[in-house]
Amino acid sequence: MIIIMKPNASEEAVKKVTTLIEQKGLTPHLSRGAEVTIIGVVGDKTRLAGSNIEISDGVDKVVAVTESYKLANRKFHPQPTEIRFQNTVIGPSTLTVMSGPCAIESREQLLETAFAVKKAGATFLRGGAYKPRTSPYSFQGLETEGLKYMKEAREATGLSVVCEVTSARAIEEAVKYVDMLQIGARNMQNFELLKEAGKTKLPVLLKRGLAATIDEWLNAAEYVMASGNEQIILCERGIRTFETSTRNTLDLSAIPVLREKTHLPVIVDPSHATGVRAYVEPLARAAVAAGADGLMIETHPCPEKALSDGPQSLTFDQFEALMSDLKPYAALAGRTF
Amino acid sequence: MIIIMKPNASEEAVKKVTTLIEQKGLTPHLSRGAEVTIIGVVGDKTRLAGSNIEISDGVDKVVAVTESYKLANRKFHPQPTEIRFQNTVIGPSTLTVMSGPCAIESREQLLETAFAVKKAGATFLRGGAYKPRTSPYSFQGLETEGLKYMKEAREATGLSVVCEVTSARAIEEAVKYVDMLQIGARNMQNFELLKEAGKTKLPVLLKRGLAATIDEWLNAAEYVMASGNEQIILCERGIRTFETSTRNTLDLSAIPVLREKTHLPVIVDPSHATGVRAYVEPLARAAVAAGADGLMIETHPCPEKALSDGPQSLTFDQFEALMSDLKPYAALAGRTF
Amino acid sequence: MIIIMKPNASEEAVKKVTTLIEQKGLTPHLSRGAEVTIIGVVGDKTRLAGSNIEISDGVDKVVAVTESYKLANRKFHPQPTEIRFQNTVIGPSTLTVMSGPCAIESREQLLETAFAVKKAGATFLRGGAYKPRTSPYSFQGLETEGLKYMKEAREATGLSVVCEVTSARAIEEAVKYVDMLQIGARNMQNFELLKEAGKTKLPVLLKRGLAATIDEWLNAAEYVMASGNEQIILCERGIRTFETSTRNTLDLSAIPVLREKTHLPVIVDPSHATGVRAYVEPLARAAVAAGADGLMIETHPCPEKALSDGPQSLTFDQFEALMSDLKPYAALAGRTF
Amino acid sequence: MIIIMKPNASEEAVKKVTTLIEQKGLTPHLSRGAEVTIIGVVGDKTRLAGSNIEISDGVDKVVAVTESYKLANRKFHPQPTEIRFQNTVIGPSTLTVMSGPCAIESREQLLETAFAVKKAGATFLRGGAYKPRTSPYSFQGLETEGLKYMKEAREATGLSVVCEVTSARAIEEAVKYVDMLQIGARNMQNFELLKEAGKTKLPVLLKRGLAATIDEWLNAAEYVMASGNEQIILCERGIRTFETSTRNTLDLSAIPVLREKTHLPVIVDPSHATGVRAYVEPLARAAVAAGADGLMIETHPCPEKALSDGPQSLTFDQFEALMSDLKPYAALAGRTF
Repeated sequence: MIIIMKPNASEEAVKKVTTLIEQKGLTPHLSRGAEVTIIGVVGDKTRLAGSNIEISDGVDKVVAVTESYKLANRKFHPQPTEIRFQNTVIGPSTLTVMSGPCAIESREQLLETAFAVKKAGATFLRGGAYKPRTSPYSFQGLETEGLKYMKEAREATGLSVVCEVTSARAIEEAVKYVDMLQIGARNMQNFELLKEAGKTKLPVLLKRGLAATIDEWLNAAEYVMASGNEQIILCERGIRTFETSTRNTLDLSAIPVLREKTHLPVIVDPSHATGVRAYVEPLARAAVAAGADGLMIETHPCPEKALSDGPQSLTFDQFEALMSDLKPYAALAGRTF
Repeated sequence: MIIIMKPNASEEAVKKVTTLIEQKGLTPHLSRGAEVTIIGVVGDKTRLAGSNIEISDGVDKVVAVTESYKLANRKFHPQPTEIRFQNTVIGPSTLTVMSGPCAIESREQLLETAFAVKKAGATFLRGGAYKPRTSPYSFQGLETEGLKYMKEAREATGLSVVCEVTSARAIEEAVKYVDMLQIGARNMQNFELLKEAGKTKLPVLLKRGLAATIDEWLNAAEYVMASGNEQIILCERGIRTFETSTRNTLDLSAIPVLREKTHLPVIVDPSHATGVRAYVEPLARAAVAAGADGLMIETHPCPEKALSDGPQSLTFDQFEALMSDLKPYAALAGRTF
Repeated sequence: MIIIMKPNASEEAVKKVTTLIEQKGLTPHLSRGAEVTIIGVVGDKTRLAGSNIEISDGVDKVVAVTESYKLANRKFHPQPTEIRFQNTVIGPSTLTVMSGPCAIESREQLLETAFAVKKAGATFLRGGAYKPRTSPYSFQGLETEGLKYMKEAREATGLSVVCEVTSARAIEEAVKYVDMLQIGARNMQNFELLKEAGKTKLPVLLKRGLAATIDEWLNAAEYVMASGNEQIILCERGIRTFETSTRNTLDLSAIPVLREKTHLPVIVDPSHATGVRAYVEPLARAAVAAGADGLMIETHPCPEKALSDGPQSLTFDQFEALMSDLKPYAALAGRTF
Repeated sequence: MIIIMKPNASEEAVKKVTTLIEQKGLTPHLSRGAEVTIIGVVGDKTRLAGSNIEISDGVDKVVAVTESYKLANRKFHPQPTEIRFQNTVIGPSTLTVMSGPCAIESREQLLETAFAVKKAGATFLRGGAYKPRTSPYSFQGLETEGLKYMKEAREATGLSVVCEVTSARAIEEAVKYVDMLQIGARNMQNFELLKEAGKTKLPVLLKRGLAATIDEWLNAAEYVMASGNEQIILCERGIRTFETSTRNTLDLSAIPVLREKTHLPVIVDPSHATGVRAYVEPLARAAVAAGADGLMIETHPCPEKALSDGPQSLTFDQFEALMSDLKPYAALAGRTF
């Protein structure tokens, strides 16, 4: 931690800060310049928690030197993490595609989709049983019934399955039926939910919040990890900006940034990011080229009739074409696909 | 709902859309222009849910005409809502100030603060028992113990008390001790939590999400209202922008916008919005001048030692000065204070 | 300047950085911690320009300690600046209201407006002769003809007049007719224009760019000041965010932030910020309450027929009501009005 | 244009709007629903300019149906535009790489760079002679001297050359020396500059503004085109968001969006977008995979000593590696490279 004093800070103000640091058992290092004095603090800075040095007299600003996330931090865990499932592994050597409908609407819809995406090469089936919708009057999901269809589809196809969970109760149910829990963008900082997911043994797919910085996202992963579950996959799905021609702005630079900061796998969801079917394919290719470990792509037997997010869903033919289009990109990235 | 066709949309494409509308029992109105054809849909548009007209051939875009929130909508409830508490009412005739620490740290800290803010003129005590913190290693709150101190402070001072709740379990506990539940910014679209809050009889203070549009915020209020609880107070607390000199950007234009769109009361939290103590007073005045029904202001017996958000907390002397400063502004607004 | 090394930075990497610093005639201060090494640089850091220490081996990040703007910086000029005009002064003791049409459309429109705003208490007439419009097919302004009407209105009413300039040529013309030059939001970082404005003797009203941080805005002011003209007035007019219910998001927290950082006067334009007539009055009051030195308010004899920004323009009656509404707020702020 | 009336709009208010439309020689189409009345306007809506229907009594909102840009609009010009230079063409069949230093610092630096990027496969040399810098105290460019070095490098290598212009005067100079003019992000809505660039015969590289929507960007292109110059290349270079781990957020979804909306070529600048050298390569690959027609990449003989933007510049070895890495991606995109 570095404390920058104001140009006119008195000797007494500087002394007050260094004394406070010493009282906590830490060592201050002073750098006195022509314009300002800087105080570096070395040692375990968690001892300074609650010291609020920024409002001590004469302090201009306080700059953090180290990240607050530890378990998710690549500095302390340089090897990339691989996460194993019954039929596949997510990590640096594979390109994992998860596909399926935004919302599970019926047994038929889900099974039909499962067989179609399996045939095209996906290894994961996605599908929402608990739907967080902006309006309370929109379709809210089939809940446990939907989870049961997921399990049935899993058994019928050999695909692994992932479902979003939106409450402690949903986690309790979902762990009986699925291979991976998804925490959605709107719940990325629902810390109680993160802690509950951390208590399970299932891998967690953690979507980036609409307005979450990469550091906040990694701190959210840290919540799950600190609760005992280190199997996290991060999913970039677009951030909120002023641009309105896409639903959100897909931040593909997050991929190289995350590679530097964390050892956790990173996948990309171009369907939710853009909200427009025609933009899914070019951005899926771009995500793979930028280094993503996988993709989440929405598909539906009949997008015109989807109860949620139809406009961004691919038909099965479109999905098959996309998968075939992705093959050489996976090969260039050195990933099994 | 209005459907705008592409310039080159075929006659057949237009027909397909109008047929779909008629099949749902609705009436399409065509306007054919030199450049484009527009189709207006009149009638109960919820019948079109899941029709995904935007991906029908030849459709350029679909524009919604009416808001999806109904109970919160001023168009259907023109009178401003007033919400009554043991010692006060929140609404157009009063200026309500809620004050207290970001986090409840101890019985002494809370009681001392309660008496101080009461003396200065606040009618509500705020204090966090469940703290949503960016890092899992930050102080997470005293939970039930904190709620008990809130109730004790309530009884000792006659203040009403409000606490943030972050899970269904926290709601279950909190309803035993407090007058109002707070849903925080990070949980504004935690729809399960909104529904749980909707099942209680307690008024709900609903903070705006960091990246929530005003329409999304009103839809979040609608979730609580649709679950049976219509006593909602909205709290503007800053949105996330590119500007970094304040923690968030306080959006005071939200006040007149909300006045037009909803009948619910609106309060402002300049402490969390700015994150800087020196900016609280000018923005508190501005909020009252812009028409706010109340303010939420953080105070602490000793901000330097606060376990959370010390830099933005006022000392008791500063709070007293602020309250005295606000008096003429409340008078100009025609509000009891 | 502070240089934070990576946790695993070699002794050699640290040495390379300190040597580079010493070669520039500056003194590095090392703080070695358990986790990281920090190097403080004291002395005239402009000597390090072009050293790009951030890409030296082992460097994690570089943190600037002091602001790059000097002339605009309150640290070096603690007294608030006052700017004098023929009929008024802008600064801490007055509340200055500038009003008039978005675009000058005709001699009649401008003169009628000038008399009306003068009668209501404005001291400045605003009006656009050069209009920066999003589309090339929108009305682009009367140019020199408009400037002549401004001068005529100035002479007829005694008001000071301000016009936006959008090119070196426009500055050349405008200096013959007006009391103050306005640099618009879209040109805030048109550095050539800033330098040209800096060569004139006229005060400059510098609007904040749509996506400009406060630091960038003060650096833009520094461009004008460094070119020889220190009479700058800053004008907050809303920033671009994700919210669409107002045209931009008025950032009133900029007022207290600017008070801390600069000695220059600050005014607020709620008309352009919101784009909606009904929101102008509450936000004008809020701006005064937050400490603004003045306001810019659009008025038009017949807003329905305005060639630009009619929806946000007040009628003369509405403007008169606003001015009367502002009186007690100016009095509370201790400002002549 | 579609006019949506308020639910309680009177018959008289509706009549007033339809009469206004008819007076302009246009035809209103009414759709009366249970909740609201909608009025479609067909015909040449430029006749309604300055009518400000949105503030007529009873009007809730006005929705534009067609884009304001015409010459740049793909609807009216379906074939992709190709732009020819002495040594290359920019368009759908090629992948054009422009490379060079952020700022031209000396004849040696520029020539050395020109030969290096030519050798690695670039067809364009970039280099700044007029530098728009945030602070007036940063290096501002060599101006005409720099332009002369560009011409010399052009002649020595056969590369085409592109320079940013920041004023009418700079355009006058630059046309003597370069093959293409660049309008930078900060000047994207400097409409006077756009008009001046429109009067030249040189192709224009138009960078997206930091806070510009895609529609505003296309309107800026329209300014140049409406002034007589239809040879525009759009360059995505990152937009301003809340995320701080990259300098800006590269919006690669802009590529498929622009493909739909315009016939103009689109290139991507990952160097300015990220500001970090290590992120340039993955995002360059992603841009090609997403369909970009070209790339702009900063290179410098010695990035540690660059006077501007060193941290994001590649060494010649890194650039060569990048070019070799891009080859298979260009091949997959069916582009000559």
